[in-house]
Amino acid sequence: MIYRFGKRFALLALVLVLPLFGDEGLWLFNAPPVQALKTKYKFDLTDEWLRHVQLASVHFGGASGSFVSPNGLVMTNHHVGQGAIQNLSTKDRNLMETGFYARTRAEELKAPGLELRVLQNIEDVTARVLEAETPGLAPAQAAEARNKAIAAVEKEASEKTGLRATVVNLYSGMMYHLYTYKVYSDVRLVFAPESAIAFFGGDQDNFTYPRYDLDICLFRIYEDDQPIASNHYLKWSPTPVKEGDLVFASGHPGSTGRLLTYAQLEFLRDVAYPWTIANYERRRGLLKDFSRRGPEAARQAQGTLFGIENSLKAITGYQSGLLDKALMDKKLKDEEALREDIRGNPELAAVYDKAWDEIAAAEKAYAPFYKLHRFFEGGAGFTTSYFGTARTLVRLAAERTKPDAERLREYRESAIPGLTRRMQAVTPVYDELEIFNLTDSLIQLQKEFGTMAEVRWLFTGRLAEDVARELVAGTKLKDPAVRKNYLDGGLETVQLSDDPMIKLALLVDPVSRGIRRKYEREVESIETTNGALVAQALFKLMGSAVPPDATGTLRLSFGTVRGYVENGRKIPFFTAFQGLYDLSAKHGNRDPYVLPPSFLAAKAAVRQATPLNFVSTCDSIGGNSGSPVINRRAEFCGVLFDGNIQSLPARFVYSDAQNRSVMVHAQGIIEALTKVYKAQPLVDEILGKK
Amino acid sequence: MIYRFGKRFALLALVLVLPLFGDEGLWLFNAPPVQALKTKYKFDLTDEWLRHVQLASVHFGGASGSFVSPNGLVMTNHHVGQGAIQNLSTKDRNLMETGFYARTRAEELKAPGLELRVLQNIEDVTARVLEAETPGLAPAQAAEARNKAIAAVEKEASEKTGLRATVVNLYSGMMYHLYTYKVYSDVRLVFAPESAIAFFGGDQDNFTYPRYDLDICLFRIYEDDQPIASNHYLKWSPTPVKEGDLVFASGHPGSTGRLLTYAQLEFLRDVAYPWTIANYERRRGLLKDFSRRGPEAARQAQGTLFGIENSLKAITGYQSGLLDKALMDKKLKDEEALREDIRGNPELAAVYDKAWDEIAAAEKAYAPFYKLHRFFEGGAGFTTSYFGTARTLVRLAAERTKPDAERLREYRESAIPGLTRRMQAVTPVYDELEIFNLTDSLIQLQKEFGTMAEVRWLFTGRLAEDVARELVAGTKLKDPAVRKNYLDGGLETVQLSDDPMIKLALLVDPVSRGIRRKYEREVESIETTNGALVAQALFKLMGSAVPPDATGTLRLSFGTVRGYVENGRKIPFFTAFQGLYDLSAKHGNRDPYVLPPSFLAAKAAVRQATPLNFVSTCDSIGGNSGSPVINRRAEFCGVLFDGNIQSLPARFVYSDAQNRSVMVHAQGIIEALTKVYKAQPLVDEILGKK
Repeated sequence: MIYRFGKRFALLALVLVLPLFGDEGLWLFNAPPVQALKTKYKFDLTDEWLRHVQLASVHFGGASGSFVSPNGLVMTNHHVGQGAIQNLSTKDRNLMETGFYARTRAEELKAPGLELRVLQNIEDVTARVLEAETPGLAPAQAAEARNKAIAAVEKEASEKTGLRATVVNLYSGMMYHLYTYKVYSDVRLVFAPESAIAFFGGDQDNFTYPRYDLDICLFRIYEDDQPIASNHYLKWSPTPVKEGDLVFASGHPGSTGRLLTYAQLEFLRDVAYPWTIANYERRRGLLKDFSRRGPEAARQAQGTLFGIENSLKAITGYQSGLLDKALMDKKLKDEEALREDIRGNPELAAVYDKAWDEIAAAEKAYAPFYKLHRFFEGGAGFTTSYFGTARTLVRLAAERTKPDAERLREYRESAIPGLTRRMQAVTPVYDELEIFNLTDSLIQLQKEFGTMAEVRWLFTGRLAEDVARELVAGTKLKDPAVRKNYLDGGLETVQLSDDPMIKLALLVDPVSRGIRRKYEREVESIETTNGALVAQALFKLMGSAVPPDATGTLRLSFGTVRGYVENGRKIPFFTAFQGLYDLSAKHGNRDPYVLPPSFLAAKAAVRQATPLNFVSTCDSIGGNSGSPVINRRAEFCGVLFDGNIQSLPARFVYSDAQNRSVMVHAQGIIEALTKVYKAQPLVDEILGKK
Repeated sequence: MIYRFGKRFALLALVLVLPLFGDEGLWLFNAPPVQALKTKYKFDLTDEWLRHVQLASVHFGGASGSFVSPNGLVMTNHHVGQGAIQNLSTKDRNLMETGFYARTRAEELKAPGLELRVLQNIEDVTARVLEAETPGLAPAQAAEARNKAIAAVEKEASEKTGLRATVVNLYSGMMYHLYTYKVYSDVRLVFAPESAIAFFGGDQDNFTYPRYDLDICLFRIYEDDQPIASNHYLKWSPTPVKEGDLVFASGHPGSTGRLLTYAQLEFLRDVAYPWTIANYERRRGLLKDFSRRGPEAARQAQGTLFGIENSLKAITGYQSGLLDKALMDKKLKDEEALREDIRGNPELAAVYDKAWDEIAAAEKAYAPFYKLHRFFEGGAGFTTSYFGTARTLVRLAAERTKPDAERLREYRESAIPGLTRRMQAVTPVYDELEIFNLTDSLIQLQKEFGTMAEVRWLFTGRLAEDVARELVAGTKLKDPAVRKNYLDGGLETVQLSDDPMIKLALLVDPVSRGIRRKYEREVESIETTNGALVAQALFKLMGSAVPPDATGTLRLSFGTVRGYVENGRKIPFFTAFQGLYDLSAKHGNRDPYVLPPSFLAAKAAVRQATPLNFVSTCDSIGGNSGSPVINRRAEFCGVLFDGNIQSLPARFVYSDAQNRSVMVHAQGIIEALTKVYKAQPLVDEILGKK
């Protein structure tokens, strides 16, 4: 049933590179846009250049970062490091508000549970994975066979190399690449500005441009209590970027849907996004209520609220693309044209034509159980970090008793070290906030699924808040020693636990697993099998390579530093400190345009013309936050922290007319570190001065 | 840590046979008491004789039966066939009350879900099982290693032979034998007398002697809709047994505890039996209440009530042994003497001495969680056949996803065909009776474990009866098509079920599995590892073989037809029809001494001196019911159906002074079939007349 591409195809991708739309492309490091760069920019992309950039790039949580000194110094966004900064804050030491600067290495603060990774190698394992499918398997069985092969590949690689090994599914299952990472778990905070300047303009200006944000922070990686030697790091660009400069972003875009079929886009537009947006909107409102309880409550809620507002704005932007009839009509027309071409060739038609219909049927099948999937397996019914912990402990204990290939994918042997570390990390949890969030989610759960036995049992006739309060007050999972006990005790300890949160996780696990399996069998596996066919058909007929959709793994994008025209007005490619001070003054230095005391005090010292932010046409999406943006010489020119509002529909259709990535400018960073924060040792380290 | 015996030991057992107490012994067919029979009875036990008897013996449910004609006719007890007889009864056709005789083969009634097995072969696999234990394993790990090896042996054997393969653990883990069975699933009822005569004297006379019961029934095994050719069957003895005759019983004794340590006996006496007896007593009272609702209710409850009364009387008898200070003192003295001997030899002491202490510690550890184990894993909290079905479906789905060696033992691949057949059998279930039983068990569950989350959730503030009623009324498991759907659908179907009984099974499964695992790890595996050491020590020091405790597998016992003295009165070795009629008349033909109309009508025709029941010193225990009792020529002399009250303490200590097995006499059977039931064709078949 499945047309096999394998190695032969991987070579094809390396040769026939003709990007379809302007500077579009989140390119694989092992299938880079060599030809396009040569043709369009006369740039010779060498293996050394690529290897250097790969090893200087850092996977930071779900996002990105880079080495900017030979001593393990890692640059990322403030909003990427925010979780760590919050975990290091207390009621009396609010690093979000005050910022932080470790003047000496001894002052650097170890971030609990934070784990950074550096990609070492990529290997094409498509043949090995697809060989596991014996001919004639149904999609769900094929998925199982592939998963077993993947687990075996990962296990073998991690045993052989001692590295973290993950197989990545590309082109919706047409290709499988093995990524191996060096993992670092001693990561210390070096510098963070105040959130007021990092997130200047707040949610209001998020996903907009012009911007004036110092959205950076710096960490340092240690091993054996010593900073690591980061031989591959990005040197600072001695000159500011100019309009028209070729630049690159190297980072970890999370997901795009450019190769999705029309039916998949319809599903997002009509089912997934409406629910997700409504859910975020309700939660945003509630968290704002919570924040009004007082400054400490506001501090506690800040991280979650930021995340929700950010996601809400992003998804609203994506949805605006899907609601754009012209965009959707074009998608449909392109798809129909492709299918027409396929039907014109009986051999191709026999293999590929039904792929779109199969996917459409799967989306239709998914709609009626989408919410059950979200509420149970997605955890939307149990919004508290304790539930996440409980579920991880419950599943870890169960999955560890199985052979690697039979486990839920996130509990494969290769993932266990990270999971156990996470389970033992000491991070602050605020019970009142947990109760607040859990109460809301339980109310939604009851509204949607109140007749289910599990929900009736959980409520036992009580109010959601009473249930939530009892669960949070009763659980002992806040104690890392208790979590360790479950980790060590295994299945029996979990099964005989009387912890209410563990009991809850056990109670809902059958339904969660069942609905996950149903999703995997009836939706995901169909999408994978047929998505691979769609990608193959595209390649066969277009005679050219398009990069795969984003998968949270390292990608290279390129573009030019370039302003754009909006509502007939020319938007310049960069902003300067002057604009920051002006904007704040214009709003009477009030939230969200309030400047921190450091910036107010340094106003006279700061060279006002210094560029602060800039934009380029580099393709990016959520997960690219923290990506270094570099020039032809691979020198650091800035750190990507956002896209403008026009970039959001590019989740599905890229266009470089207005779509821009937004960066903090390298020169702006130095100016702030020097003049505002008086962080000369840090500046010297970054600029390579002794 | 574990001293290995293996094959060498198996040979030893064949050679050094000197039974310890009179005719004691439930002997293995592959380690029979050749020497004892030769010495004591001048009987030459040949391989042919043994092979013939083995192949003529039938495993019937948890009990016994035998082929008595070349056409697949199987003799057993009425109380062994009772489940099948009840399943074939309806409100309007009460076969328990009326009896049944199929005058032609076409009239024979197929018993739903009934499965008979005939032992084909026994193989010593001790070495293979014990080799799986690498040295230095803790008991729980050793148990896991052994279980994996056992699963592999069973799988291999069943694949190789196509037979049902089961590894049996003997001497508490000192030996492992592989038993392979031919399984028959088309079993039809041929003849059953009225329960009034089968169980004459009722619960009152159960486990007593003299007796006057026609506790027999006959089934026939079919394959491809034809009676099978049972080449190995027992010919009918042409002459009645005489006092002093050597006889044998071949059957499936369920369990004995003669090799248990003193600490294990104390546990039974102080923890297990008191709870079990109280539980049965309460249930008996309640079922009698239920029976008083009317004749149909009484009919429905009859089977369960019989089982409970039988078990209650048996366990009360066992307990009377444990409460007998002289018996227990002797046990302790013997054990201490054995340990003294061991301590006298430093080499033995190092290996064996601590075994008793380890077991004692395990019993002590078990006591606090015995009830939780019984209520959850033992199912005492959920007494309804629907729960049993739901749990089997839930676990079957989960266990089938695991490799054979990792499964709960009763879900190994070799057991699946039987399980699935059982799940698809159509057997009558009476919802009011189910609700009645479930209500009681839920009341007990709440009393014992009312603070557990699972119990609170299940009750949700309601009365036990309401919960039970909702569960039984709501479940669709009565429909075989629904059960088939779960069997076919697997894990996902189970996990997403909205059947309340499935939900209940899912709810309690984590605790059930947890407490089972705790029991296996902290108690059972310690008992096995150390029980094997105790058995080895016994063999080493006694220089003689004792047969292993009963394990529900085929055993041969021998003894003589012999009366006994009770309270100074001589009890004769047989009873006759005359006594039956006299006893009934003495009680005014009232329950439980009421004779059925057939017997009343045939009184004049019956030769009153014909023997009806008889006794012998053959060792037996529950599970031996239905065993053929045969003479030196392996001819059928009667069918074992009971032991007298003095036989019950023999669960722990055998003595042949008064301990007797009770049989229905072969001549009595023929007399009844001929004169009472006019079943001449059946008699002709049995006697081999055309």
